[in-house]
Amino acid sequence: MERYAEQTRQEFEGWEEFYSKPVDIKSDFFKQNDRIFDVIYAQQFDREFLDYLCGLADKIRLMARTKMGLGKLKHLLPHKRAMLYFVQPSTRTFLSFMNACHTLGLSVSEIRGTSTSSEVKGESREDTIRTFASYVDLIISRHPEAGFAEKTAWVLNQTERPVPVLNGGSGPDQHPTQALLDIYTLEREFSNIGGLDGKKIAMVGDLRRGRTVRSLSYLMKNYKDISLYFVAPDVFRMKEDIKGFLEKHGISFHETEDFKSIMPLVDAIYMTRIQNEYTENPSSKVETFPAFHFKTQHLGIIQPHCVILHPLPRRYEIEVSVDKDPRAAYWRQERCGMWIRAALIAYIFRVDQEILDEFS
Amino acid sequence: MERYAEQTRQEFEGWEEFYSKPVDIKSDFFKQNDRIFDVIYAQQFDREFLDYLCGLADKIRLMARTKMGLGKLKHLLPHKRAMLYFVQPSTRTFLSFMNACHTLGLSVSEIRGTSTSSEVKGESREDTIRTFASYVDLIISRHPEAGFAEKTAWVLNQTERPVPVLNGGSGPDQHPTQALLDIYTLEREFSNIGGLDGKKIAMVGDLRRGRTVRSLSYLMKNYKDISLYFVAPDVFRMKEDIKGFLEKHGISFHETEDFKSIMPLVDAIYMTRIQNEYTENPSSKVETFPAFHFKTQHLGIIQPHCVILHPLPRRYEIEVSVDKDPRAAYWRQERCGMWIRAALIAYIFRVDQEILDEFS
Amino acid sequence: MERYAEQTRQEFEGWEEFYSKPVDIKSDFFKQNDRIFDVIYAQQFDREFLDYLCGLADKIRLMARTKMGLGKLKHLLPHKRAMLYFVQPSTRTFLSFMNACHTLGLSVSEIRGTSTSSEVKGESREDTIRTFASYVDLIISRHPEAGFAEKTAWVLNQTERPVPVLNGGSGPDQHPTQALLDIYTLEREFSNIGGLDGKKIAMVGDLRRGRTVRSLSYLMKNYKDISLYFVAPDVFRMKEDIKGFLEKHGISFHETEDFKSIMPLVDAIYMTRIQNEYTENPSSKVETFPAFHFKTQHLGIIQPHCVILHPLPRRYEIEVSVDKDPRAAYWRQERCGMWIRAALIAYIFRVDQEILDEFS
Repeated sequence: MERYAEQTRQEFEGWEEFYSKPVDIKSDFFKQNDRIFDVIYAQQFDREFLDYLCGLADKIRLMARTKMGLGKLKHLLPHKRAMLYFVQPSTRTFLSFMNACHTLGLSVSEIRGTSTSSEVKGESREDTIRTFASYVDLIISRHPEAGFAEKTAWVLNQTERPVPVLNGGSGPDQHPTQALLDIYTLEREFSNIGGLDGKKIAMVGDLRRGRTVRSLSYLMKNYKDISLYFVAPDVFRMKEDIKGFLEKHGISFHETEDFKSIMPLVDAIYMTRIQNEYTENPSSKVETFPAFHFKTQHLGIIQPHCVILHPLPRRYEIEVSVDKDPRAAYWRQERCGMWIRAALIAYIFRVDQEILDEFS
Repeated sequence: MERYAEQTRQEFEGWEEFYSKPVDIKSDFFKQNDRIFDVIYAQQFDREFLDYLCGLADKIRLMARTKMGLGKLKHLLPHKRAMLYFVQPSTRTFLSFMNACHTLGLSVSEIRGTSTSSEVKGESREDTIRTFASYVDLIISRHPEAGFAEKTAWVLNQTERPVPVLNGGSGPDQHPTQALLDIYTLEREFSNIGGLDGKKIAMVGDLRRGRTVRSLSYLMKNYKDISLYFVAPDVFRMKEDIKGFLEKHGISFHETEDFKSIMPLVDAIYMTRIQNEYTENPSSKVETFPAFHFKTQHLGIIQPHCVILHPLPRRYEIEVSVDKDPRAAYWRQERCGMWIRAALIAYIFRVDQEILDEFS
Repeated sequence: MERYAEQTRQEFEGWEEFYSKPVDIKSDFFKQNDRIFDVIYAQQFDREFLDYLCGLADKIRLMARTKMGLGKLKHLLPHKRAMLYFVQPSTRTFLSFMNACHTLGLSVSEIRGTSTSSEVKGESREDTIRTFASYVDLIISRHPEAGFAEKTAWVLNQTERPVPVLNGGSGPDQHPTQALLDIYTLEREFSNIGGLDGKKIAMVGDLRRGRTVRSLSYLMKNYKDISLYFVAPDVFRMKEDIKGFLEKHGISFHETEDFKSIMPLVDAIYMTRIQNEYTENPSSKVETFPAFHFKTQHLGIIQPHCVILHPLPRRYEIEVSVDKDPRAAYWRQERCGMWIRAALIAYIFRVDQEILDEFS
């Protein structure tokens, strides 16, 4: 650890320079003894890691079915203290991390919003972060500013007391544990038909700014023979950076505005929220793009095994009556988020082997 | 469970119809295997249940006197996770539920207010509730809107993952665990003189809107030879619905504005807050109705065994110097709230027998 | 306990009279069986207590290095429930108390701010406090009003259910656990050179209103041959009350505005925040008093063993690049706060001997 930090200090002049570098150059900085230590970007995950973590989450889920299993999980990390620093509204990410911690026995402190903390006394953000690290063993943060979690990890890795940092969403771009849970959900839903490799996936809605579909697209390079279908109105088309990335890695993708035409073709439909709140003309009345909604009538068109995902919260993109169909996977997806986050925390604190040993 | 839910879906067209039905018709919907599963209304409790729960609370209180007993209690439900969803100010209900959970070892997540959650992103309330259920095993809610807890339970009981819902107060009418703690307090205070049966109880203050006195009146049908004395100014008289209910069940009641005249007659005086903040003329200056306050001088008039209750918080209805009299039971009543809520949670998760076994 | 309370009720007419009395007259009121029970003022601590508590904190810190040790600590107080009542912004005090509780296994409830509690319903503060005591075994409070914690303890010690009260800061004067952590930090930093006795300590910044330097000055009477150097601009000089106290106890002190001149002389420099936000003329632009800042260049002037402390949060009083010097002790100081608070809670609940037995 110290070695990396030292090396990094030598290689990079300071935060601004570090932050500007490509992810693959600096990902070692977020490792300890060749294992991921801080989770900042989805790009940190390779196939081996993803497979391992999904397997681990499966084991945790299995153990959680019995009181004895839950008891064993709870005895894994009772000696660790976590802190949730969430200065942006969040229900799912907050509660799933909180309950992932509870499942593994960690004690949790929370600070939500900044009105109750010392930032009002003019403390620098770096000092606030070091303070958290003085009291806890793990920091999970959500912040409206891009780069927040990365800077947190960057600061701590240069102190005497680095503690791991998990990015629960920072600004418009990164939300790596959402990508983890999406992968885990897809792998689980496809577990009887060979897993995620070789599947056709539609991503629907606001692809231009949706960070979940962007992260998920990046991770597709880890899987074989994936075909992506980007279904979005022209104003919300997937950006060139992702398309360039996919072309570079030989991942097939198609763009269309005709949602219905691709429904029968795909193995999974990943819905996202869509609305014109960000569009060029803010004074226009709300446009909800109904052609990009999934409705009950569409259940008859999609394949019998096709699953429907959504990062939630939804508004009107998926009709509520769709929920009863077994192919509606978004509520299971939500719960997958808790298990994969528990797996991640177990991995970070190196109690993963203890979990696997339960099954040997 | 599923059976009830299915049956209910067939019997009722939807939420609006369900909500409009009388309680006794739909109370089965809130049971599982003939045990109460969701706690929505005070009317769900019968004498057998009340006696059983009071006995259970007594055992928990007894165990809580020693470190060993507390240790055993804490090992009952360490594998369960609860969530407190309190979007209305509350100290007592919040803290007593929180500490009831802690006593039994449950992990607790809390959301207070709605500013920190995804409701700001336009999520429907039903989706928010399902989300809670994804992460926890028990939802305890307090909400300003009538029917909130009932709808929560109604929604969840139709999903793959129903979790029990405890109503910590929803709107003006229902606060069933307050009724439970009032019953438990009365039974305890009267334990040396034959319990609640046959007692004379005065209810004083704003009886028209006070939900505690309304719920308590309903529950009186479970006890023998109760006489009620409704002591209120004319504008705050007990409503006709309750009086009709009492007549139907043959429970004796008397109405008066003369508090002093009934003081020497009764075994318990249940005080409630009273003020004209809701009265017809809001521009009038505050009227505190001093004739309906309990003062130190009244301690000489009431019977030696007469107990004074109050749901708290109080304002000026009971003089502070009354607190020192052993018949002032409201601080013990507050603590009873924690024990009876612990008993309720133990019952819901079916660890009640383990508690009773400690004493066999 | 009851005895003291009774005695006090006889000696003092009421709160106003009690509050006006000198600390040494009333400190017995905050004891139980000759041990400190409520922690309200720094003046409650004598040398024997300070030495004992520092030794205890050392043991806890040592145990916390291993999973087994942490496991033992966590089994000391799992049967106790604490509550953090923090109605004033705080990061450090809040988090360090929270995590001290977690370390010893206590369950913690928190109320931050008053908007979510029953104070909005017009409840008196005394009633709110009694309510807390109904549900928990320990109250830790922070409040903007002077005397708040003292009144809390005063109220509770006259009830059937006194629970210990720890003052986490009340108004401008008292913050006794900050004084504890400062002493503990100094003793630890000087552990190889004979401890705190005989040392020269500079206190720098706003000494007039800084409650940490005021409390620390009071505690110096417990140590031998201490020399204090008060370094402050004229408007922020140490007040006469403290100087009178030091003279009375024969503690040497010197006042100066020339920070640099005393840097080479002292064994410890205690920095505090300084700015003119409170000065007589609020319309003047911010004056940060750079002559009273510690800068990187000063590291060459101070002694090799001289340590730099700061209660944090800092603004610009200490240059960030100073942090890397091993003599910058303020981050260790922060962590000391968690250990000494854990020691205090262990002492209050009389599990201190169990900790010491681990090392015998």
